[in-house]
Amino acid sequence: MWICDNLSISKEGRLTFAGRDAVSLAEKYGTPLMLLDEGRIRRRCREYKKAMEESFGGGSMPLYASKALCFKEIYRIMRDENMGIDVVSPGELYTAKEAGFPLENAYFHGNCKTDEDIRLGVSEKIGCFICDNIEEITALNEEAGRQGRKQKVLLRLTPGIDPHTHAAISTGKVDSKFGVAIETGQAKDFVKLALSLPNIRLAGFHCHIGSQIFEYKPFVDAAEIMFKFIAEMKTEFGYETEELNLGGGMGVRYVESQPTIDYSANIAGIGKTLSEMSGRLGVKMPKILMEPGRSIVADSGMTLYGVGGVKRIPGFKNYVSIDGGMTDNPRYALYQSEYTVLLANRPTEKADGEYTVAGRCCESGDLIQENVPLPSPKRGDILAVLTTGAYNYSMASHYNRIPKPPIVLLSEDGGEKLAVRRETFEDMARNEL
Amino acid sequence: MWICDNLSISKEGRLTFAGRDAVSLAEKYGTPLMLLDEGRIRRRCREYKKAMEESFGGGSMPLYASKALCFKEIYRIMRDENMGIDVVSPGELYTAKEAGFPLENAYFHGNCKTDEDIRLGVSEKIGCFICDNIEEITALNEEAGRQGRKQKVLLRLTPGIDPHTHAAISTGKVDSKFGVAIETGQAKDFVKLALSLPNIRLAGFHCHIGSQIFEYKPFVDAAEIMFKFIAEMKTEFGYETEELNLGGGMGVRYVESQPTIDYSANIAGIGKTLSEMSGRLGVKMPKILMEPGRSIVADSGMTLYGVGGVKRIPGFKNYVSIDGGMTDNPRYALYQSEYTVLLANRPTEKADGEYTVAGRCCESGDLIQENVPLPSPKRGDILAVLTTGAYNYSMASHYNRIPKPPIVLLSEDGGEKLAVRRETFEDMARNEL
Repeated sequence: MWICDNLSISKEGRLTFAGRDAVSLAEKYGTPLMLLDEGRIRRRCREYKKAMEESFGGGSMPLYASKALCFKEIYRIMRDENMGIDVVSPGELYTAKEAGFPLENAYFHGNCKTDEDIRLGVSEKIGCFICDNIEEITALNEEAGRQGRKQKVLLRLTPGIDPHTHAAISTGKVDSKFGVAIETGQAKDFVKLALSLPNIRLAGFHCHIGSQIFEYKPFVDAAEIMFKFIAEMKTEFGYETEELNLGGGMGVRYVESQPTIDYSANIAGIGKTLSEMSGRLGVKMPKILMEPGRSIVADSGMTLYGVGGVKRIPGFKNYVSIDGGMTDNPRYALYQSEYTVLLANRPTEKADGEYTVAGRCCESGDLIQENVPLPSPKRGDILAVLTTGAYNYSMASHYNRIPKPPIVLLSEDGGEKLAVRRETFEDMARNEL
Repeated sequence: MWICDNLSISKEGRLTFAGRDAVSLAEKYGTPLMLLDEGRIRRRCREYKKAMEESFGGGSMPLYASKALCFKEIYRIMRDENMGIDVVSPGELYTAKEAGFPLENAYFHGNCKTDEDIRLGVSEKIGCFICDNIEEITALNEEAGRQGRKQKVLLRLTPGIDPHTHAAISTGKVDSKFGVAIETGQAKDFVKLALSLPNIRLAGFHCHIGSQIFEYKPFVDAAEIMFKFIAEMKTEFGYETEELNLGGGMGVRYVESQPTIDYSANIAGIGKTLSEMSGRLGVKMPKILMEPGRSIVADSGMTLYGVGGVKRIPGFKNYVSIDGGMTDNPRYALYQSEYTVLLANRPTEKADGEYTVAGRCCESGDLIQENVPLPSPKRGDILAVLTTGAYNYSMASHYNRIPKPPIVLLSEDGGEKLAVRRETFEDMARNEL
């Protein structure tokens, strides 16, 4: 019946999440409230680590893509689980450092690193820069020289793969703001430049084909292109690739019509093909990195909202309004993303109609989901939106001057921990003179 | 040549904004940087006030829709200019109060006011609630009773007008999350209820038909429906309407292909029709309120970015990356909004090609504008995006953990004032335990 196996019904007939009564948590912490199933996050990290070591060989590892959900405690979890991380900005780097994450296990992404970002990354001894472009690697070489360091880098390349996901989250095509294209010959020049720079140690290559990919074939297609490129670079420059980063993008089940994903089986499938490729193309198997973000945290998250009221417009539509919306979850407004919605205080009641879940922003586009079946919602109900762990809190805005919700971590041993306090009005106006 | 008359070229050949050298300001405050032309904001307020008094009669006034751009100093400007304001959340209400704005001139909007919001609005003696729905007015009546107050309200109604703007910013249709529909008969019941509640003083009605409307015809169409409704309520309940709020929505010129708007002439056009309607329908002319937001601040704003690099993908596209993006301006990602873009350090150089302006977020959809003509941009250039005063800073997010830019006000007397400090990494992680 449930979209995710950490959901259930209590004996009082209310929704439980990670074994805890959702309504009680909403009453205790207020709404909107974000809950995170910490045990599930940890288990998913271990699954990725184990599968990647077994299928790709020693040294291969997952890097948690922290843009999916970034706050101090998540970096502590990643440190405990011996995960690598990818950070995409000096702000993420700062947060990881403050949380005590060892930055030698961090990879620094971004299509527009400023001189200041580069200075910070080098001085903080970040493990690896993923260089996006020529301007960056040139500036990085100079800065590393100034700081007397030889910086490890991967080069971000675009393999020319379109995995048929939403355009905004598809990144591996030749026409991309990210990386340098293999197809145009520019990637080869990028490698030549990287090999010529005295303060750069080229460790390998990175590609990222997109998000919400439910099959492993696109990864294999990308890997095939990358392996051929690796072989070409060996022939051309005698360059032996140590690391190949295949990026993130494995899908997550948001609604019942989507498949359940077996991440280990997908990784095993990719691993098998990589071994075959490596033999066929005469390329030494590099360490394989992947960057799961969504698939680590999405279905470990749930958002609880208070219902404000219901509008029934005869002949048109029904609206149920909630005390959050696009400020804490802009994904429907941006991508028309699908979500599963239910009432946490009466999850098993039979739906009596379809309702569009409208956020509290003064903006018509502030919807969370349209036309979902619900049992006559009314003011005071607690509405749960499932699978909100990824790209909700991290994308949160202050539109309409709405504060960000708190995050409560639910641990495997039954403990609960407030990891992020509810933002106050004072917080939002703190920098205003 | 220029999209807005507060733009010019200095004798050194650089862009000036409100008479100031944009590049010098970028050097002084860093990038990204938001500039606001305070004189222009004040002049636009005065234009609205004068035109509305002249065309609609005494007591008619504009309410600045502060969701367009909300920070303390903007409320001080509105107080100085004797503007009313509309606020859409307790966060906006808090900020206006902290800035010393007199809350008796504030109207409180929102489709999902919580019990706590209502308590706050009543206890802060906010001038008027714009009640969106039955649940709200019922809760408001109870709370006002508890606090021994009789609360002035307008009822938000949907006149059933679609002004053919982008769906996300079109709000006057019958199928709307806002207000109560006239067409279905529900609005009449809403009035009946409001008139029966002992702690509610019904002052009139509100409608809002959408945004970026370039002609005054849709406003007149809405007013016709509202006047007919007012006449009906007089017949039905003997109720005399004091105030009619026609909402906001007058357009702003973002690109050259859009018209320049004469707000005074538009208001005069609406006024003329309203007088005729009032006579024809036998309705006493109510005070008219309007809620300009975008048209007060949009073309008083400009954002300056540092260029990180340029990608030329032969046969595909050129990308120029900047040190901001959808985090400070999500409007292209959300609505494919148009903007005018130029290089502030060499605004008159002839363009050599088209470039897609890509933000620094790790997200393909993080674009500011596609295929704009620019003269060979390169790392270190200062890129100006024009007309960013509305729905940029107020919609800003922390996605990718990117801090919000500072706001510098440029006053008419040549002064400049830092109104919002640049956010720090510490600020963003302040509530994380």
